[in-house]
Amino acid sequence: TRADKLTAASLDALVLEIAGGEPSKSPAGAQDLWATRLDVGVHRDSVVLAVGGGVVGDLAGFVAATYARGLAFFQAPTSLLAQVDSSVGGKVGVNLPGGKNMVGAFWQPRGVIIDVAVLATLPDREYRAGLAEVVKYGVIMDADFFAFLEGHTAELNRRDPATLREVIARCCRLKADIVEADEREESGRRATLNYGHTVGHAIEAATNYQGVLHGEAVAIGMLCESRLAEAAGRVTAEETKRQHDLIAALHLPTACPEGLDAEELLRLMWRDKKVQAGEIRFVLPTKIGHAELVGGIAASSILSAVSG
Amino acid sequence: TRADKLTAASLDALVLEIAGGEPSKSPAGAQDLWATRLDVGVHRDSVVLAVGGGVVGDLAGFVAATYARGLAFFQAPTSLLAQVDSSVGGKVGVNLPGGKNMVGAFWQPRGVIIDVAVLATLPDREYRAGLAEVVKYGVIMDADFFAFLEGHTAELNRRDPATLREVIARCCRLKADIVEADEREESGRRATLNYGHTVGHAIEAATNYQGVLHGEAVAIGMLCESRLAEAAGRVTAEETKRQHDLIAALHLPTACPEGLDAEELLRLMWRDKKVQAGEIRFVLPTKIGHAELVGGIAASSILSAVSG
Repeated sequence: TRADKLTAASLDALVLEIAGGEPSKSPAGAQDLWATRLDVGVHRDSVVLAVGGGVVGDLAGFVAATYARGLAFFQAPTSLLAQVDSSVGGKVGVNLPGGKNMVGAFWQPRGVIIDVAVLATLPDREYRAGLAEVVKYGVIMDADFFAFLEGHTAELNRRDPATLREVIARCCRLKADIVEADEREESGRRATLNYGHTVGHAIEAATNYQGVLHGEAVAIGMLCESRLAEAAGRVTAEETKRQHDLIAALHLPTACPEGLDAEELLRLMWRDKKVQAGEIRFVLPTKIGHAELVGGIAASSILSAVSG
Repeated sequence: TRADKLTAASLDALVLEIAGGEPSKSPAGAQDLWATRLDVGVHRDSVVLAVGGGVVGDLAGFVAATYARGLAFFQAPTSLLAQVDSSVGGKVGVNLPGGKNMVGAFWQPRGVIIDVAVLATLPDREYRAGLAEVVKYGVIMDADFFAFLEGHTAELNRRDPATLREVIARCCRLKADIVEADEREESGRRATLNYGHTVGHAIEAATNYQGVLHGEAVAIGMLCESRLAEAAGRVTAEETKRQHDLIAALHLPTACPEGLDAEELLRLMWRDKKVQAGEIRFVLPTKIGHAELVGGIAASSILSAVSG
C-alpha cells in the first residue's frame, strides 16, 4: 500500500483516499472521514498528513481541526497551486451548496512538505493554473520576484526543477509573512492575497466551476482588476501590460471566455466574501509589488474593466 | 416571536430552534444550521447567541466556530449543568455515533449571560444532574467549597436563589481559572475537569445516552473513580464516603444502573479522548480539593472499581 514506508519506519499508518474534485470537499465528505477515524480508533495524539491538491488539504485540514477538537496536521501538497497557496496559511474548510469554503476554520499545519518532483506529472493546464498564483505574489508584494519571473518564463514553461524550487520557496515565504501579520484576515493585509479573485470567483461561478480552472480565472481576474486600478489612476497602462505579457508568456488566458456577460459577472461579485457595508471591495495594485483593499468603485468602471 | 426584544432594539434577529436532547448535537444538526445560515445570508459580522442547555451551547458554538471560519458568539445557558460547566471554557462540538463530543473545536464565547431565575422551571432530575458537576469542582480543586456544599444541601435541594448565585459564580470562577491556565488541555490541568467523566462517559455510551443523564453518570463515575484512587492508595475510604454522602444528600444516584457489564464499560473507556500512548488515563483525587491525571491503572482495578 501507499503507507509502506511509514509502516517500515514503525509508524502506525492508515491511508484514507478521497475522490478527486471539489464535490469531495463537502460536509458529507468530512462526516465520512470523522466516522472512519472513530472506527479505526484515531486518538488525540494521532497526526493527519494531507497528501494531494487543494481539495485534499482543505478537507483533511478541516477534519484535523475538528476531530477530537484538533489533531496535529501536516500538508504534503502535490499540485503547484496547493504548494504555493492553499497548503500555507491554515485556511481549511468545506463547501456548502452555493457557498465555497463557507464552513471551515483557521488551523495551522505543523509543517508543509513540498517535493517539486511531483510536479513533473501534473497535467499541463493544472500546472499553468498554479503559475497564476505565483504571478500574483509578484504583483501584490514583491517587484523583484515579478522581474525574476519575467526573466525565467522559459524555465517555468519547461518546469525546470531548480527554478521551481526557488519560486515555490519564495511564494511560501511571502505567504507566511502575510499570514503572520494578519492570520484571521482582520487588518485587510491578508485580503490582498485575493488580488484577481473578486473577478476570478465571478468567472468561476458564471461557468459553474467547469471549463475554467481557478488559476485561469485568477489570471483573467488580475488583468481585469489591473485595468480597474488603471481607470482609478493607481497604476499605469505599462504596469498592466507587464502583467499581461507575463501571463501570456506562461500560456495562461488573458481574456474572459466567449459569451460571458459583464452584467452577470457584476451580479456575482456582490456575493463575494469581501463585500462589506454594501460595497464590493477590490484588491488593486498601486504598482508592481504593492496592492491594497479598495472600496467605492463605480459599477460602470467595473463593467468596463471586465469587458476588457 | 422570541426575538421580539432584540428586534425592538433594532437588531436584526433570526431564531433557529433545535429539538431537545443529545441527538440534535450531531454532524447532521450542524449541517442543517450551516445551510440555514447560508440561505438567510448570515455574514462574517453576524453574532450567534446560544440560549438553552448544553446541547444548544455545544451545537450553536460549533456552528459559530466553523461558519465562515468563525462567528462571534455568546452563551446564555438555561440549565444548571450548562451554567456551571459547558457554557464556560470554549469547548464546542457535536457527537459521532459512539463518540461523544468527538468532533469540535475550542471557540471561546465573547460572554456568558447567566440568570438563575430560569432554574426554577428545570425538571427535578435535570437540576440535580447539574449539581453533580458542582460537587466535582469541590473535589478536584476547592475543599472549602466542598465543605460549603456539605453544609448547604437543604438550600440546594430547595433551589434557594441566593445559594445558587453564590454556587454558580464560584463554579464559573473555578472553571475560568483552569481554562486560563490550560485552554487546550495540554498540561493536564484542564483534564482534571474530567473527574468522574471517564467512567461517566462509558455509562452514558453503554446506555445509549438514554435513561442516565450526563450529570447522573458523572456522579456515579466520581464514586467509581474515587474507589480507584482508594485502591491506588491516593485517598482514604473516608474521603470517598464524604463524596458518597454529599451526592446521596443531593438525591443523585450513587451506583451503576442494574445490568451494566463492567467489561463492556472498560471497552468503552478505551475510546475516551484521554487515552494516550495506549493507556486509559483517569483523573484521580489525592484528597478532597485536589486531583491529578493518572495513567498506568491495571484493568483489574478498573473492573473492580466500576463493579462497586
